[in-house]
Amino acid sequence: MFAEVLRTLVEETSGAIGAVVMGYDGIAIDQHLRPVEGVDLGLVAVEYANILKEVKKAAEILQTGELEEVTILTGGYQILIRILSEDYFIGLLMRREGNAGKGRFLLMREAPGLRAELR
Amino acid sequence: MFAEVLRTLVEETSGAIGAVVMGYDGIAIDQHLRPVEGVDLGLVAVEYANILKEVKKAAEILQTGELEEVTILTGGYQILIRILSEDYFIGLLMRREGNAGKGRFLLMREAPGLRAELR
Repeated sequence: MFAEVLRTLVEETSGAIGAVVMGYDGIAIDQHLRPVEGVDLGLVAVEYANILKEVKKAAEILQTGELEEVTILTGGYQILIRILSEDYFIGLLMRREGNAGKGRFLLMREAPGLRAELR
Repeated sequence: MFAEVLRTLVEETSGAIGAVVMGYDGIAIDQHLRPVEGVDLGLVAVEYANILKEVKKAAEILQTGELEEVTILTGGYQILIRILSEDYFIGLLMRREGNAGKGRFLLMREAPGLRAELR
Protein backbone atom coordinates (compact mmCIF):
# COMPACT_ATOMS: atom_id res chain seq x y z
CA MET A 1 0.00 0.00 0.00
CA PHE A 2 2.83 2.45 0.76
CA ALA A 3 4.38 1.88 -2.67
CA GLU A 4 1.13 2.64 -4.45
CA VAL A 5 0.47 5.85 -2.50
CA LEU A 6 4.07 7.02 -2.99
CA ARG A 7 3.89 6.42 -6.73
CA THR A 8 0.57 8.30 -6.97
CA LEU A 9 2.06 11.22 -5.04
CA VAL A 10 5.07 11.50 -7.34
CA GLU A 11 3.13 10.96 -10.57
CA GLU A 12 0.30 13.36 -9.74
CA THR A 13 2.52 16.23 -8.54
CA SER A 14 4.18 18.13 -11.33
CA GLY A 15 7.88 18.61 -10.56
CA ALA A 16 8.00 15.81 -7.96
CA ILE A 17 11.23 13.84 -7.84
CA GLY A 18 10.53 11.28 -5.15
CA ALA A 19 8.56 10.40 -2.05
CA VAL A 20 9.48 8.38 1.01
CA VAL A 21 7.86 7.04 4.19
CA MET A 22 10.59 7.08 6.79
CA GLY A 23 11.23 6.75 10.50
CA TYR A 24 12.96 9.43 12.55
CA ASP A 25 15.78 6.92 12.83
CA GLY A 26 16.45 7.51 9.11
CA ILE A 27 15.26 4.07 8.02
CA ALA A 28 12.84 4.15 5.08
CA ILE A 29 9.79 1.86 5.03
CA ASP A 30 9.25 2.49 1.34
CA GLN A 31 10.10 5.01 -1.37
CA HIS A 32 9.29 5.88 -4.94
CA LEU A 33 11.80 7.77 -7.04
CA ARG A 34 11.81 9.25 -10.52
CA PRO A 35 15.25 8.73 -12.02
CA VAL A 36 16.97 12.11 -11.74
CA GLU A 37 20.63 12.95 -12.02
CA GLY A 38 22.43 14.07 -8.92
CA VAL A 39 19.70 13.48 -6.35
CA ASP A 40 20.04 10.75 -3.75
CA LEU A 41 16.60 10.68 -2.12
CA GLY A 42 17.78 8.32 0.61
CA LEU A 43 20.58 10.69 1.60
CA VAL A 44 18.29 13.73 1.53
CA ALA A 45 15.70 11.95 3.67
CA VAL A 46 18.22 10.74 6.25
CA GLU A 47 19.65 14.26 6.64
CA TYR A 48 16.20 15.71 7.15
CA ALA A 49 14.98 12.91 9.42
CA ASN A 50 17.55 14.07 11.93
CA ILE A 51 16.43 17.68 11.65
CA LEU A 52 12.76 16.73 11.94
CA LYS A 53 13.53 14.98 15.20
CA GLU A 54 14.91 18.27 16.51
CA VAL A 55 11.90 20.24 15.22
CA LYS A 56 9.58 17.74 16.91
CA LYS A 57 11.51 18.06 20.17
CA ALA A 58 11.36 21.87 19.94
CA ALA A 59 7.59 21.79 19.40
CA GLU A 60 7.27 19.63 22.53
CA ILE A 61 9.55 21.79 24.67
CA LEU A 62 7.81 24.97 23.55
CA GLN A 63 4.34 23.44 23.91
CA THR A 64 3.33 24.87 20.55
CA GLY A 65 1.19 21.81 19.84
CA GLU A 66 2.05 18.68 17.92
CA LEU A 67 4.23 19.06 14.83
CA GLU A 68 2.20 18.49 11.63
CA GLU A 69 4.07 19.79 8.61
CA VAL A 70 7.46 21.19 7.62
CA THR A 71 8.26 22.83 4.27
CA ILE A 72 11.77 23.69 3.11
CA LEU A 73 12.57 25.81 0.06
CA THR A 74 16.12 25.87 -1.32
CA GLY A 75 17.65 27.31 -4.49
CA GLY A 76 16.88 24.13 -6.42
CA TYR A 77 14.26 22.15 -4.52
CA GLN A 78 11.16 22.11 -2.35
CA ILE A 79 10.87 19.53 0.41
CA LEU A 80 7.40 18.89 1.84
CA ILE A 81 7.14 16.82 5.01
CA ARG A 82 4.01 15.59 6.80
CA ILE A 83 4.19 13.88 10.19
CA LEU A 84 2.40 10.52 10.25
CA SER A 85 3.00 9.34 13.82
CA GLU A 86 5.34 9.50 16.78
CA ASP A 87 7.87 7.52 14.75
CA TYR A 88 7.20 8.11 11.04
CA PHE A 89 6.83 10.86 8.47
CA ILE A 90 6.28 11.15 4.74
CA GLY A 91 8.53 13.37 2.63
CA LEU A 92 8.03 14.64 -0.92
CA LEU A 93 11.04 16.06 -2.75
CA MET A 94 10.26 18.26 -5.73
CA ARG A 95 11.93 20.68 -8.09
CA ARG A 96 11.66 24.29 -7.03
CA GLU A 97 9.32 25.16 -9.87
CA GLY A 98 7.04 22.18 -9.11
CA ASN A 99 3.45 22.47 -7.92
CA ALA A 100 3.89 22.56 -4.14
CA GLY A 101 0.22 23.34 -3.54
CA LYS A 102 -0.78 20.10 -5.25
CA GLY A 103 1.91 18.15 -3.41
CA ARG A 104 0.78 19.53 -0.08
CA PHE A 105 -2.84 18.70 -0.85
CA LEU A 106 -1.99 15.12 -1.81
CA LEU A 107 0.12 14.63 1.34
CA MET A 108 -2.83 15.82 3.43
CA ARG A 109 -5.25 13.60 1.51
CA GLU A 110 -3.10 10.46 1.83
CA ALA A 111 -1.90 10.92 5.43
CA PRO A 112 -4.93 9.36 7.18
CA GLY A 113 -4.67 6.19 5.04
CA LEU A 114 -0.94 5.91 5.68
CA ARG A 115 -1.50 6.45 9.40
CA ALA A 116 -4.01 3.60 9.46
CA GLU A 117 -1.43 1.32 7.78
CA LEU A 118 1.22 2.23 10.34
CA ARG A 119 -0.95 1.23 13.28
CA MET B 1 14.51 50.28 10.26
CA PHE B 2 14.21 46.66 11.51
CA ALA B 3 11.68 47.68 14.16
CA GLU B 4 9.44 49.36 11.60
CA VAL B 5 9.49 46.43 9.18
CA LEU B 6 8.84 43.95 12.00
CA ARG B 7 5.87 45.99 13.24
CA THR B 8 4.43 46.22 9.69
CA LEU B 9 4.79 42.46 9.27
CA VAL B 10 2.95 41.67 12.49
CA GLU B 11 0.25 44.30 12.03
CA GLU B 12 -0.50 43.52 8.39
CA THR B 13 -0.66 39.72 8.82
CA SER B 14 -3.87 38.51 10.40
CA GLY B 15 -3.09 36.02 13.17
CA ALA B 16 0.55 37.12 13.54
CA ILE B 17 1.93 37.02 17.09
CA GLY B 18 5.45 38.33 16.63
CA ALA B 19 8.39 38.75 14.28
CA VAL B 20 12.13 38.67 14.91
CA VAL B 21 15.38 39.29 13.01
CA MET B 22 17.88 36.89 14.55
CA GLY B 23 21.31 35.38 14.04
CA TYR B 24 21.91 31.64 13.89
CA ASP B 25 23.65 32.10 17.20
CA GLY B 26 20.20 32.77 18.72
CA ILE B 27 20.85 36.45 19.37
CA ALA B 28 18.05 38.73 18.17
CA ILE B 29 18.84 42.02 16.45
CA ASP B 30 15.29 43.26 16.87
CA GLN B 31 11.78 41.93 17.50
CA HIS B 32 8.19 43.05 17.56
CA LEU B 33 5.68 41.16 19.67
CA ARG B 34 1.94 41.35 20.20
CA PRO B 35 1.21 40.63 23.87
CA VAL B 36 -0.06 37.04 23.94
CA GLU B 37 -0.40 34.67 26.86
CA GLY B 38 1.93 31.72 27.02
CA VAL B 39 4.20 32.54 24.08
CA ASP B 40 7.83 33.49 24.63
CA LEU B 41 8.93 34.62 21.16
CA GLY B 42 12.57 34.80 22.24
CA LEU B 43 12.52 31.20 23.44
CA VAL B 44 10.75 29.99 20.30
CA ALA B 45 13.24 31.80 18.07
CA VAL B 46 16.29 30.50 19.93
CA GLU B 47 15.02 26.91 19.67
CA TYR B 48 14.44 27.28 15.95
CA ALA B 49 17.68 29.16 15.26
CA ASN B 50 19.50 26.01 16.24
CA ILE B 51 17.37 23.86 13.97
CA LEU B 52 17.77 26.30 11.07
CA LYS B 53 21.52 26.02 11.40
CA GLU B 54 21.15 22.26 10.88
CA VAL B 55 18.81 22.73 7.92
CA LYS B 56 21.29 25.14 6.34
CA LYS B 57 24.11 22.67 6.87
CA ALA B 58 22.04 19.87 5.32
CA ALA B 59 21.27 22.01 2.25
CA GLU B 60 25.00 22.61 1.85
CA ILE B 61 26.00 18.97 2.29
CA LEU B 62 23.31 17.79 -0.11
CA GLN B 63 24.05 20.56 -2.60
CA THR B 64 20.35 21.25 -2.99
CA GLY B 65 21.03 24.98 -3.42
CA GLU B 66 21.01 27.71 -0.86
CA LEU B 67 18.33 27.56 1.85
CA GLU B 68 15.65 30.24 1.34
CA GLU B 69 12.58 29.48 3.41
CA VAL B 70 11.34 27.11 6.11
CA THR B 71 7.71 26.75 7.19
CA ILE B 72 6.62 24.81 10.28
CA LEU B 73 3.00 23.96 11.09
CA THR B 74 2.11 22.70 14.58
CA GLY B 75 -1.21 22.06 16.34
CA GLY B 76 -1.37 25.66 17.50
CA TYR B 77 1.01 27.76 15.41
CA GLN B 78 2.60 28.47 12.07
CA ILE B 79 6.23 29.55 11.96
CA LEU B 80 7.47 31.21 8.75
CA ILE B 81 11.21 31.71 8.36
CA ARG B 82 13.07 33.48 5.54
CA ILE B 83 16.86 33.40 5.29
CA LEU B 84 18.40 36.88 5.02
CA SER B 85 22.11 36.10 4.88
CA GLU B 86 24.82 33.67 5.91
CA ASP B 87 24.27 34.78 9.50
CA TYR B 88 20.72 36.10 9.86
CA PHE B 89 17.11 35.13 9.29
CA ILE B 90 13.68 36.64 9.89
CA GLY B 91 10.96 34.63 11.63
CA LEU B 92 7.23 35.27 11.81
CA LEU B 93 5.23 33.41 14.45
CA MET B 94 1.50 33.23 13.86
CA ARG B 95 -1.58 31.42 15.09
CA ARG B 96 -2.47 28.33 13.14
CA GLU B 97 -5.57 29.93 11.66
CA GLY B 98 -3.65 33.08 10.61
CA ASN B 99 -3.12 34.15 7.00
CA ALA B 100 0.16 32.38 6.16
CA GLY B 101 -0.04 33.36 2.48
CA LYS B 102 -0.03 37.03 3.42
CA GLY B 103 2.77 36.52 5.93
CA ARG B 104 4.87 34.68 3.36
CA PHE B 105 4.27 37.40 0.80
CA LEU B 106 5.28 40.15 3.23
CA LEU B 107 8.45 38.27 4.26
CA MET B 108 9.40 37.99 0.59
CA ARG B 109 8.60 41.64 -0.03
CA GLU B 110 10.62 42.90 2.95
CA ALA B 111 13.63 40.56 2.66
CA PRO B 112 15.62 42.58 0.10
CA GLY B 113 15.35 45.76 2.21
CA LEU B 114 16.40 43.89 5.36
CA ARG B 115 19.31 42.29 3.50
CA ALA B 116 20.52 45.71 2.40
CA GLU B 117 20.44 46.87 6.04
CA LEU B 118 22.45 43.85 7.17
CA ARG B 119 25.28 44.53 4.73
